[in-house]
Amino acid sequence: MNDSMVSRVPRGSLERFCCQVFERLGLSSEDGAMAAEVLVSADARGIPSHGVARLGRYVHGLKVGLMRPEAMPEILHETATSLVVDAHGAMGAPVSVRTMRDVMAKARLAGTAFGCVRDSNHFGIAGFYAMLPLSEDMIGVAMTNTAALGVPTFGRLPMLGTNPLAFAAPADEEVAFVLDMSTLVVTRGKVEVYDRQAKALPEGWAVDARGRSATDPEQILHNLTYQIGGGILPLGGLGEVLGGHKGYGLAVMVDVLCAVLSGGALASEIADTPGSSARVSHFFGAMRVDVFRDALAFRRDMDRLLRTLRKAEPAEGQDQIYVAGQKEREHEDACTRDGVPVPTKVLEELREIGIRQGVRL
Amino acid sequence: MNDSMVSRVPRGSLERFCCQVFERLGLSSEDGAMAAEVLVSADARGIPSHGVARLGRYVHGLKVGLMRPEAMPEILHETATSLVVDAHGAMGAPVSVRTMRDVMAKARLAGTAFGCVRDSNHFGIAGFYAMLPLSEDMIGVAMTNTAALGVPTFGRLPMLGTNPLAFAAPADEEVAFVLDMSTLVVTRGKVEVYDRQAKALPEGWAVDARGRSATDPEQILHNLTYQIGGGILPLGGLGEVLGGHKGYGLAVMVDVLCAVLSGGALASEIADTPGSSARVSHFFGAMRVDVFRDALAFRRDMDRLLRTLRKAEPAEGQDQIYVAGQKEREHEDACTRDGVPVPTKVLEELREIGIRQGVRL
Repeated sequence: MNDSMVSRVPRGSLERFCCQVFERLGLSSEDGAMAAEVLVSADARGIPSHGVARLGRYVHGLKVGLMRPEAMPEILHETATSLVVDAHGAMGAPVSVRTMRDVMAKARLAGTAFGCVRDSNHFGIAGFYAMLPLSEDMIGVAMTNTAALGVPTFGRLPMLGTNPLAFAAPADEEVAFVLDMSTLVVTRGKVEVYDRQAKALPEGWAVDARGRSATDPEQILHNLTYQIGGGILPLGGLGEVLGGHKGYGLAVMVDVLCAVLSGGALASEIADTPGSSARVSHFFGAMRVDVFRDALAFRRDMDRLLRTLRKAEPAEGQDQIYVAGQKEREHEDACTRDGVPVPTKVLEELREIGIRQGVRL
Repeated sequence: MNDSMVSRVPRGSLERFCCQVFERLGLSSEDGAMAAEVLVSADARGIPSHGVARLGRYVHGLKVGLMRPEAMPEILHETATSLVVDAHGAMGAPVSVRTMRDVMAKARLAGTAFGCVRDSNHFGIAGFYAMLPLSEDMIGVAMTNTAALGVPTFGRLPMLGTNPLAFAAPADEEVAFVLDMSTLVVTRGKVEVYDRQAKALPEGWAVDARGRSATDPEQILHNLTYQIGGGILPLGGLGEVLGGHKGYGLAVMVDVLCAVLSGGALASEIADTPGSSARVSHFFGAMRVDVFRDALAFRRDMDRLLRTLRKAEPAEGQDQIYVAGQKEREHEDACTRDGVPVPTKVLEELREIGIRQGVRL
């Protein structure tokens, strides 16, 4: 993208703007601030598909009641190490931040703890939640299921969401290890990018309505939108040769931990309808490192592991080996310094939302 | 393989034989029985690369002291939800069974619990341990790192093991979901099969010593044996196009949970030496389903998820969609009924081991 098509907006301004918009739509200032922080963090970490470009969709959802700003999440069950929350159709981010905080509070006492949320909405980037426990020397885990667009190995119909899995572990001098990955080979957003550029998809990303390898992004997106069949493949691609059955298994694992453990909607049941958004489920975990060993020793061994990988000799034609979370952290540091990049087109959309809600960017 | 080259041996006979061999080499009868059960379960589940074909290697390791039959595993640290064990070079299977049992005992009281083992040896199939909690309506998790043969995304040197991850969740009428997968695209065993058949590897399995895509199995195995560089790629294959960075991230996650959490050897430090076997680390977890919701309701929703997937329309040219653990369970049922298939060549090796150890098969 050309630099002239992108503006840099201070992170705080962008968060305040989103928060005020959410407040106008009925969220408490605390919930609005949480939702705004999660949203902007996606842009700051270089994942704009989950950032402020989605604000319009959230505004629409809240206005027409697809997401329920007044919903009061309810704790269905809890023990010293577990928690299950029914979000009752609330926005995903605030109930997710609160659930992870509750999980962390339990882990502080019990050592390890886990929580699920059901009947929720899009919660942004999974990595945001997995990173919350890092400052307390805890390992963090976050997962969510999503509307079905992934086709199981040997299948032809979408049965699984992008079902991301995030895992974060603290380091000492190195950047924390933050893995945040869809268990499908790519997300819908990537297919949309190829569609806009009118480029054929790489083999191994998608199948058509009969379950055969397909590379036409327009056709794939059309089929997904009109539920004709076909969709995106699991990590590992088509069939079993490159391990597609493993990615498929990981996507099911995410559905088990999010939906089966909470009693939420699962697999192909999850879909947007005229009356409600796709009601998704989440899973959160926190594990205190010091119930296993001294936390400083753990962080120093993390440094050793991450440095060993980063400093290993790269392949011919490559500059360096990365570790998960490193590029995102470098992007985030640049955004804190220079502002968050927002494409001009998105900025105009935000201004229009602001005008309609009486909030100034 | 031709049926005439395979004998079917009753599971009990095979286990008793292996157990007696282990006893002759200094293991207690209890440890021998555990090691034998894990070994034979691999053959029974259709994963012969981890089965009795390895007995010769275990015998050698125990005889020359690479694995220490007299080692007394030591608990380094424990809380109500956590456990860290130093195996002091013992055989992998017995210390792993005991650690998973201890983790389950903790989970019975605390709801969820996790344990690590360091300075251990090859523990067989990860799925065996992940399945132990199933009978008590617990979700099971098992991972291990292994000697480095996996090359990170954009790298050229082996830095990561096959680093399998196993996850098991109970169902009611359906077969339990048991995902047991290497986080590399394939294991070394698969490359060896291609080598024996003198077939080129599929693109995306391996790289040469300069980190370039490579398809000659003989060259890959030679380079691994003589530590020349190159090796097997992570799940997702070469580079980032098909998600190789995700498989690489998962392999690192397994190393974090196994080795960094226990203080064990990590990444490329793990290697066989003249004086000792590769000293690996393991990670085990158990989560009681009923600390989240009613266990029967969970199992019934598992049935619904697994049936939804199994009964979905297959791709053109495919008979059905599988779920993880289904084929392995069908194989296991056949073995219980008809005996465990053992190739004639392996059977001869077992008989020779038996003659040397004074044990009759």
